[in-house]
Amino acid sequence: MTDGAPLASTVDARVRALTERVRKGEPSAVARALTLVENREPVAAALLHELWPDTGRAWRLGITGPPGAGKSTLVAALIAHFRKSGRTVGVIAVDPSSPFTGGALLGDRVRMGVAHGDSGVFIRSMASRGDLGGLCASAQEACDVLDASGKDVILIETVGVGQTEVEVVHAADSIVVVLHPEAGDAVQAMKAGLMEIADVYAVNKADRPGADRLEQEILGMLGLRPHGADTWLPPVVRVVSTTTVGVPDLVAALEKHRAHQNQTSGTDSRRVRRIEQRIRLLVESEMRSRLFGRPEAAARLAALVADVRAGRTTPYGAASHILPGNEP
Amino acid sequence: MTDGAPLASTVDARVRALTERVRKGEPSAVARALTLVENREPVAAALLHELWPDTGRAWRLGITGPPGAGKSTLVAALIAHFRKSGRTVGVIAVDPSSPFTGGALLGDRVRMGVAHGDSGVFIRSMASRGDLGGLCASAQEACDVLDASGKDVILIETVGVGQTEVEVVHAADSIVVVLHPEAGDAVQAMKAGLMEIADVYAVNKADRPGADRLEQEILGMLGLRPHGADTWLPPVVRVVSTTTVGVPDLVAALEKHRAHQNQTSGTDSRRVRRIEQRIRLLVESEMRSRLFGRPEAAARLAALVADVRAGRTTPYGAASHILPGNEP
Repeated sequence: MTDGAPLASTVDARVRALTERVRKGEPSAVARALTLVENREPVAAALLHELWPDTGRAWRLGITGPPGAGKSTLVAALIAHFRKSGRTVGVIAVDPSSPFTGGALLGDRVRMGVAHGDSGVFIRSMASRGDLGGLCASAQEACDVLDASGKDVILIETVGVGQTEVEVVHAADSIVVVLHPEAGDAVQAMKAGLMEIADVYAVNKADRPGADRLEQEILGMLGLRPHGADTWLPPVVRVVSTTTVGVPDLVAALEKHRAHQNQTSGTDSRRVRRIEQRIRLLVESEMRSRLFGRPEAAARLAALVADVRAGRTTPYGAASHILPGNEP
Repeated sequence: MTDGAPLASTVDARVRALTERVRKGEPSAVARALTLVENREPVAAALLHELWPDTGRAWRLGITGPPGAGKSTLVAALIAHFRKSGRTVGVIAVDPSSPFTGGALLGDRVRMGVAHGDSGVFIRSMASRGDLGGLCASAQEACDVLDASGKDVILIETVGVGQTEVEVVHAADSIVVVLHPEAGDAVQAMKAGLMEIADVYAVNKADRPGADRLEQEILGMLGLRPHGADTWLPPVVRVVSTTTVGVPDLVAALEKHRAHQNQTSGTDSRRVRRIEQRIRLLVESEMRSRLFGRPEAAARLAALVADVRAGRTTPYGAASHILPGNEP
C-alpha cells in the first residue's frame, strides 16, 4: 500500500499471513477471515484493508424473494451450473431472523448439492444477531473476502422480504427476484420494494398451475414502467429449480444484464458509487457505534431520555450533551 | 429551563420574543419559526429547545396514500370537520418531489376551503430541496412548532408512495392510508409498505364502482395478519371527500385508535420511544452534516474516493482519515 498504514500501528504480521492464505483460497483461512469480519473484530478492518486490492473481480449475484419460492434449491442449481462451466462459487446466505450464524453446517453443503471435498465452492451463513444495521456492511465485507479468495461468482441469498434483506442484496451486481405461482406471491414481493430492485425475475416452480398468470402479472407491471433507450427492462425467466430446467436461460439473462451494465452506466461510475457508499457506511457505522453502541453511551442515552421525559431538558439539550465539541 | 442553556451561549433575546409570539399562535410568528426550522438555521435548535415544553398536546394525524386518491380534498374535509367542532388545525403538506417550498400559496388555503381570515387554520407546504434525510426531521419539527402554537389537530399530508413519505408520516400519532377504487391501487399502496403503517384505511371516492371490491381486498389482507387481544385491527372507512360523506366516521375511527393507544401501549412508552428517536435523529443528522455535508467535507470525500479508485488507498484507509481520533 503506497499510503503506508492507514492505522497508526503496523499491520499485524499475523493479519498479513492470513491474507496471504485467503488470496490462495485456503478454506480454513477464508473461514477464519469471515469470522473476524462477522464479529467485527478490530483486526477485521486491517484485514479488509489488505484484501481490498484483490477485490472487484468476482461477479456478485443477489438471489432474493419471499419465503417458499424455492430460492435455496435455485442457488443449488446455480452452483452446479457454474461448477460445470469451470467457475468457482462463493455463497453468502443471509437470514436476518435466524439465530444461527458463523459457518455453514454440513447440511448446507449437502443441501446445496456440493460434491464432497469440492473446494471450488464456499458457503457461509450469516445472521443478524440483533444488529440489522451492521448486517449489510458485514454481508458486503464477507463478499469481499470471498472475492479476494478468488471465487469467480458470489451468490448472495437473502431470506424474507424485509427492508434489511432488500438492502443486503443491493450489494450485488445483478439481482434475481424469485417468485412462484401461489396466491398473493407477486403481491407479497411488491410489499417490500422487491419488484423495484429486480434485474431479472425468476418464476420458479414454473411447472405448476398459475405460472402463466404470474408471468403475465409481472410483465403487466413492467409495462407500466417508464423507460428510455438505455433502460434495462428486466426479463422474466421461467425455471424449475428442482429439475434445473430454465437455469441456463436464467444465467444467460444475468450475463446480458452484466453486459448492459458495462456498456451503459459504465463499470466505472458504478464502482465510484460503491466506493463512496462503502466509505460512508464505514464512517457512519463507526460513529453510531461510538455515539450509541457502547454500553456507557447507551446508558447515557437512557438517562438523557429520562431527563427529557421528566421535563428537565429537551431533545435539543440532550443532543448537545452527546455531540462532542458542540460549542455554538 | 432548569438545566440552564443547553448551548453555551444564552438563548438569544430575539428567539425568546419569537417563541412568546408562537405560543400565542400569531400567524406571522409561526410562519417565521417554520421558515427557520425548514432552513435548518442554527437558531432553529434554540427555538425548538425553548418550545419543547409547549409540545405534546396536539393530535397528529398522518394522511398518506398513492397519488390520485383525493387526499387533498379529504384534508380539506377534515379541516372543515374539526373547525366545526371548534378545534384549531395545523397542516403540513409534504411533497418530497416538489420544487416549491416555504409557505402556503394563497391557492392552498382556498383549495382546502379555509374561510378567509380564519386564523384557526395554519397551512404549510414543505419540499425536500434535495435533502430527503433532513425532510423527516424538518417535518417533525414543523409539527412541533404548530403544536406549540396551540393547534389542537395537526394534519401531516404526504404525496406519493416512496420510502421517504412513509417515514415522514411515521411522525403522526394515527395514520390514515387513503386509497380509491381504480385498477392497481391497493397493489400500488402495498408496494411502498403503506399497508403496514395504516391505523385506518379510507376508501375514498366510495361512490365509484370498485369500492366494494377494494374494501374486500383490504379486509382480505387484514384477515391474514396475525393479531392478539391487544392488537389494533385497522378499520376500513368509506368516504366521499368531495361531498364529505363518511368523514365523521373516519374521525370517529381515528378517535377510537387514539383511545386504544392510550389504553394499551400506554402513551408513556410511546413518548419515550419518540424522545429517544428524536435525540438519535438530531445527533446522527448533525454528525452526517459535519462528516459529509459541509463543502470542505464533501470535497475531501470526493478526493478520497478518487484515491481509492486509483488504488492509492482503500475504503478503510479513507474512513480512518475521516473519523476523528481514530488511533487504534
